[in-house]
Amino acid sequence: MSSTAPQSPSSPSSPSSPSGSALALAVDLGGTKVEAAFVTDQGVVVPGTRHRSPTGPQRTSDELQAAVDEVVTATLATLPTDAVLVGVGVGSAGPVDEERGLVSPLNMPVWRGYPLRDRIAALVPDGVPVTLRMDGLAITLAEHWVGAAQGSDHVMGMIVSTGVGGGLILHGRTVSGPTGNAGHIGHVECGGFDDPCACGGTGCLEAVASGPKTVAWAQRQGFAGTTGEELSAAYAAGDEIAVAAVRRSGRALGQAIAAATSLVDLEVVAIGGGFSHVSPDLFTYAREAVAERVEFGFVTKVRIVPTGLSQDGPLIGAGALVHRADVLR
Amino acid sequence: MSSTAPQSPSSPSSPSSPSGSALALAVDLGGTKVEAAFVTDQGVVVPGTRHRSPTGPQRTSDELQAAVDEVVTATLATLPTDAVLVGVGVGSAGPVDEERGLVSPLNMPVWRGYPLRDRIAALVPDGVPVTLRMDGLAITLAEHWVGAAQGSDHVMGMIVSTGVGGGLILHGRTVSGPTGNAGHIGHVECGGFDDPCACGGTGCLEAVASGPKTVAWAQRQGFAGTTGEELSAAYAAGDEIAVAAVRRSGRALGQAIAAATSLVDLEVVAIGGGFSHVSPDLFTYAREAVAERVEFGFVTKVRIVPTGLSQDGPLIGAGALVHRADVLR
Repeated sequence: MSSTAPQSPSSPSSPSSPSGSALALAVDLGGTKVEAAFVTDQGVVVPGTRHRSPTGPQRTSDELQAAVDEVVTATLATLPTDAVLVGVGVGSAGPVDEERGLVSPLNMPVWRGYPLRDRIAALVPDGVPVTLRMDGLAITLAEHWVGAAQGSDHVMGMIVSTGVGGGLILHGRTVSGPTGNAGHIGHVECGGFDDPCACGGTGCLEAVASGPKTVAWAQRQGFAGTTGEELSAAYAAGDEIAVAAVRRSGRALGQAIAAATSLVDLEVVAIGGGFSHVSPDLFTYAREAVAERVEFGFVTKVRIVPTGLSQDGPLIGAGALVHRADVLR
Repeated sequence: MSSTAPQSPSSPSSPSSPSGSALALAVDLGGTKVEAAFVTDQGVVVPGTRHRSPTGPQRTSDELQAAVDEVVTATLATLPTDAVLVGVGVGSAGPVDEERGLVSPLNMPVWRGYPLRDRIAALVPDGVPVTLRMDGLAITLAEHWVGAAQGSDHVMGMIVSTGVGGGLILHGRTVSGPTGNAGHIGHVECGGFDDPCACGGTGCLEAVASGPKTVAWAQRQGFAGTTGEELSAAYAAGDEIAVAAVRRSGRALGQAIAAATSLVDLEVVAIGGGFSHVSPDLFTYAREAVAERVEFGFVTKVRIVPTGLSQDGPLIGAGALVHRADVLR
């Protein structure tokens, strides 16, 4: 991933924005890194404003906060003089406590009920609002805004990567629930799968179909590789175990999407994240599993599509928490 | 079930209502019968106004329509002279097409895309609005209005009976989806279960935990009974197979509720329907399965409670489609 927005036609060498433009400070806190950048009201990451710093389970609480401070401060320093900072959007790995602005990311065990929203608010000028939501919700807003789910009011955004997460827009508005944790599609179970999940569930989608879990399953069948990239290459070469592994995860994806559609009547599911690129066939297997729900046209109607966003998706989503506040609830 | 409202203090021998009261004509179309009655704006079925007629898979389309005509006409004839008919609410077995008012109940195969809403509209005075929704949504409105989910804005109502259905209220408003079929909790899958479902899914809650499916599983283990009532009696007597069967279905219920809560962050799930009364322990097993989701406080927080409604629930729910239109979306 480059440090500038790959889809932007502007030069990456200097910050630029339309005169007087309204910018959101977007912050994305994930399991391996925290990033910040400015996002325009057209859903574009402003070139030259993007900064990142590593996170992860080994870091202390102070180190994590220092990483956040570093990227926020560095991005703020790039605010064009003719731009207006209209708000801060923070997408965070979950679970979260939306009302109080607290985060408890599963893979950052030193942060439990950590007041990330207020800590970031202290870094920006007084009066600039800070909105914090789960990263899956932010990405869903981005798909709805400028991605693959434009024009639909009944959307699930998904990330299939180290974990499996997501978010919901129903009847044209975000659904975050009383605590802010709606959208945990990774912990919808898949019938016929008994893989134990770290959450305590059985056959949860994340326990079956995340990148690492898919590779681990392939390894148990004799696959010699250790990464999703190797699995992808083996799949493309027709390796039988790799094919079985990708098919298994794709079917689990489809089963969980069928369950979610049964429950909330989705129109479109947009899937991004590193492991979603393992093979286009992952989507085929998912669609096949959905198509087996022959009795329910309202289930088989759901469209499963690749993300319409670049790797800037999480930042665009965090920016959408500001620019698309009318869709938020 | 009696033909009058058991919770009403009024005499069942004659129709009565407060002077000038606003009444909804409530219609509930189910797999075994269709019922109609007037429901007050306090959520009470008006005594003496309730009528029913059998439905079921053996009946022709004309016979089904005649059954609907009969109960609607008979109830209309009981409208107190000092009451105002403010609307008609129809709760129907699904799937439905909410926008066009069509029904396609799974166990009434002669009705596919049947224009039930408009057929009922033709029976009532011009200008009286008719609102049609899935029965699971109607019952959820009733739980939210006068039942076990009062005071919560994040609710799933469920019926566990011949099938397993439900409905959702999220952020204080009903969620029905673009087609009207949100709430099909019976077709959320349960990890580790591979029971084939009539919908085409695997391990769907309905395929595991409906009354008939639970009895059938027990029979395969050697249970000699044939009904949910017999299973209930055997459970109460400590029969090992009956205990295993109720435990299995209760755990599946809990797993599906945990999945649903992961996805939409529920506060309370209210469960009614004939088989929900098989034993209070059904709820204990369901709660135990939810409690195993140890990593997610937002999942384990969900309260699973018995319905707060009498057997009038479906009619009260249909009435709520009129009286609680502000909660509808």
